[in-house]
Amino acid sequence: MIQASIITIGDEILIGQIVDTNSSHIATALEEAGVKVRRMLSISDKNAEIKDILLKELSDSDIVISTGGLGPTKDDITKEALFQLSGSSDWTEHPGQMEMVKAILKSRGLDTLKSNRAQALVPDKAEVIVNKLGTAPIMVFRAVQGKGTLYSLPGVPHEAVGAIPDIIADIRAHFSLAEILHRNVMVYGIAESALSELIAPWEDALPADMHLAYLPNTLTGIRLRLSVYGNDKEEENARAEAQIAALKDILGDKIYALKDSTMEEAIGELLIAKGKTLSAAESCTGGEIAHMITTVAGSSAYFLGSVTSYAISVKEKVLGVPHALIEEKGVVSSEVAAAMAEGVRRLTGSDYAVATTGLAGPGGDDVNPVGTVWIGVAGPNGTTTEKHCFKSDRKRNIQRFAATALNALRLMVLNG
Amino acid sequence: MIQASIITIGDEILIGQIVDTNSSHIATALEEAGVKVRRMLSISDKNAEIKDILLKELSDSDIVISTGGLGPTKDDITKEALFQLSGSSDWTEHPGQMEMVKAILKSRGLDTLKSNRAQALVPDKAEVIVNKLGTAPIMVFRAVQGKGTLYSLPGVPHEAVGAIPDIIADIRAHFSLAEILHRNVMVYGIAESALSELIAPWEDALPADMHLAYLPNTLTGIRLRLSVYGNDKEEENARAEAQIAALKDILGDKIYALKDSTMEEAIGELLIAKGKTLSAAESCTGGEIAHMITTVAGSSAYFLGSVTSYAISVKEKVLGVPHALIEEKGVVSSEVAAAMAEGVRRLTGSDYAVATTGLAGPGGDDVNPVGTVWIGVAGPNGTTTEKHCFKSDRKRNIQRFAATALNALRLMVLNG
Repeated sequence: MIQASIITIGDEILIGQIVDTNSSHIATALEEAGVKVRRMLSISDKNAEIKDILLKELSDSDIVISTGGLGPTKDDITKEALFQLSGSSDWTEHPGQMEMVKAILKSRGLDTLKSNRAQALVPDKAEVIVNKLGTAPIMVFRAVQGKGTLYSLPGVPHEAVGAIPDIIADIRAHFSLAEILHRNVMVYGIAESALSELIAPWEDALPADMHLAYLPNTLTGIRLRLSVYGNDKEEENARAEAQIAALKDILGDKIYALKDSTMEEAIGELLIAKGKTLSAAESCTGGEIAHMITTVAGSSAYFLGSVTSYAISVKEKVLGVPHALIEEKGVVSSEVAAAMAEGVRRLTGSDYAVATTGLAGPGGDDVNPVGTVWIGVAGPNGTTTEKHCFKSDRKRNIQRFAATALNALRLMVLNG
Repeated sequence: MIQASIITIGDEILIGQIVDTNSSHIATALEEAGVKVRRMLSISDKNAEIKDILLKELSDSDIVISTGGLGPTKDDITKEALFQLSGSSDWTEHPGQMEMVKAILKSRGLDTLKSNRAQALVPDKAEVIVNKLGTAPIMVFRAVQGKGTLYSLPGVPHEAVGAIPDIIADIRAHFSLAEILHRNVMVYGIAESALSELIAPWEDALPADMHLAYLPNTLTGIRLRLSVYGNDKEEENARAEAQIAALKDILGDKIYALKDSTMEEAIGELLIAKGKTLSAAESCTGGEIAHMITTVAGSSAYFLGSVTSYAISVKEKVLGVPHALIEEKGVVSSEVAAAMAEGVRRLTGSDYAVATTGLAGPGGDDVNPVGTVWIGVAGPNGTTTEKHCFKSDRKRNIQRFAATALNALRLMVLNG
C-alpha cells in the first residue's frame, strides 16, 4: 500500500495558536483514495528543520504532502529549503500562477509589485499546479534525492483544502492505487457497541472485497463506510447497493442519510421533499438548533424562524406557554416542552416545530440534574415529548441536546 | 530554552476521522511556561513505530509529551512499547490510580473486572500522576535510555487537557524555566497591520525584558499578549499594569477585555455590572448570536431571549417590522435592522437588543452581494445601525456577522 506523510510548516501551530485542520482533510482524502497515512508532523519554519524532516519522511514514505510556510513574508525560508532539497539550480516564473497572482491583486484593486511577482517564482525542479484560490503555487517535486514525491501546498485552510482534488488526481496518475468505491450510511440513536452487535450477522457475511468501517462522532452519530475494492465501478456500485438495501432492512429509521451528510442537511432534504416548513423554540439549547438548521444553504425554503425563550416571561408572552403550567409542572418538564413546540408552531404557522427545555449546566438538582433535557416535537398529527440525560460540560450538553432534538424532529417528519 | 515534542498515538487522527486538539492545548501551556515546542507528530499505534519515534524525539528534545493509545482495548500495545522503551522489568499496580478506577466504575454502577484492573498497572520505571478524570494513569518516565523525559497522557480530550496543570508543575519541578508573567489584552475592530502601526511607538519603547505577541483570530479579534521575564511576580505585575494602562490610552474601547476571554463573556460581565438585560433578533445569523451568548454559564441572568426571523412573515408578525418598510427599503437594509432590534427589545422588554439582516450566501446581487450585513443595536438611548461586507463562505460569513454584531452591541452597552 502506498504510504504518505503529512507535514505542516509554521510556528502558529507549534505555539498552540492554531489547530491544524488541513492535515485532517488531506488524511481523509488520502485514506479514501487508498493511500495509508503513516505519520503527521508539525515543524517550525527553519531551513535545516524543514530539510531534515522532509528528507526523513521522503525516505520513510512514498508521498509527502506539506502545507504552509509559503506566505509572502515567509516565502524565502520554505521555498529556499525546497529549492535546496530538490537540487534545483535556478528559479523560474510560472506563467499560469503569475496570471493568477495578477488577477487576485486586481480583484482587490491592487497593482502587482515585485514582492508579489516572487509568489509565482518556483525552483526549476518543481512542477506547478496552479492555485486557483491564492497567490502561492502548488508545487510537486518528484523523486527528491531519489526518494519519494513531495507536494507543497499553501497553508491557508481553504486554499489547502481546495488543492486536494488536484493532488489526489496527480497521485492517481503517478501511483498504482486500488480502485475503491466508498458508500456512506449515516446512523443516529444507537451506541456503537449496540450497532455492532445488531449488524454483526450482516457484517460477517460481507464478501472479502468489501470492508466496513465505523466512524463514530459523539455529536453526529455513527458514519458506516462500506468500501468495495475492484475494477468495475458499475458492478461494484450494484453490489454495494444490494448490501445497503439489506442494511436498511435491519436499521430502518436509525439511518438518517445514505451519503456523508449532517442531520440538519438530511432534515432539510426531507422537508423540501414533503413541501413542509419548520420552526423551533429553544430554551437550554439557546439558539444552537436554529444555528445548525441555518448553516444549510437554502434552509430559508423551509425554516421560518425560532424563538429562544431563555426568560420565563418570553416562554409565556411570546410562545404562549400558560403561567400555571410552568408553576405546576416546572420549566423543565414534558408539558412545557410540548407547549413550547406547539406555541412556536402556532406563532410562525409552520408545519413542524421542535422545542427544548433543560439544564445545560452548571447547577441542577435531584429531579433535574445537569444534562437533563425535555424535547418536544409538534406536527400536523400531534405532539410528542421525550427526556434525555447527558453527563457532559455545558458546551457539549448544548450540542448533544440539539443533535438529539433534531433526530426526534426527523423521526416525526419521516414517519408522519 | 527547554525544548519539547508532542506526539499523539492512534489511527483515528491518521485517517482524518478526528482533528487533534490535544496537541494545541498542550502547546499553548508549554509555550506560556517558557518551553519551546519544536515538533508535533501523530503516529500509528504500532510497537516499532511508537518506540522509534519516541526515541528520536527523546533524543532531539528535552521533553516528550504523548497522548493517546491508552484505552482499555489498545492498552497492551502502547503500554508494552513504553515498558520496553523505558527498560522496565516488571509491572506494578498503582494504588492511587486503582482507587480511581474503582470509583469511576462504581459511579457507573459497574463492578471492577480484571480488564479494568489492568488500567492501573504501570511499568516499574514509570512515576504515576493519578488521572482524576479517567481510568488510564498519567505516566512519567525520566531519562529514558539516558535521554529526555517522557510524559504519557490519556488521549480522551478532557482527560488530556485536565492533566496539563500537573504536567506543567512536574516540568517546573524538574527543569529550570524562566519565570514569565503573561497578561492578555483582547482587541476587536482593527486589522492586525493597522493595530501594529497604531501601537508601534508604545511597542518600540517596551523594556528588553518585556515581549509583545500578536495572536490574531479572524473571528475573535486579536489577542495581544504581554510577557514579562523576571523573578519578582509582584514587581513584574506592577510594571505590566503600567504598560497596559498606557496601551488602554491608545486603544480605548477597541479593547474588549484585559484577560483571555471571548466577546460574549465580556458582554456578559458588562451587562451584569450594569444590571442590564439583552435580547436578539436574527435573520442571516440564524441563531448564532443567541448560541454564542448562551454558551456563557450564567447568561440567563441577562439574556432574555431571541427571535430568529428567517421568514418575512416572522419579521412582521413576531417582531412587528412594518410590511411597508420591508417593501420600500428591502429586507437587507438599515431600516429593517433597526426595526428588528427595536421590535425584539419591545417584545422581550430587554434594555438592549441586537439584530442582523444580510446575506450569508449563496446568492446576492449588485446592491447586496453575498457577505453583506446590516446590524442594528437598540438601547435606552436610541438605535444605531451599521453595514459590513465580508467575502467568505456561508459558514464563516455567519460567524463574522455574529462577532461583528456582538462588538457593536458591546460598544453601545459600554458607551451608553
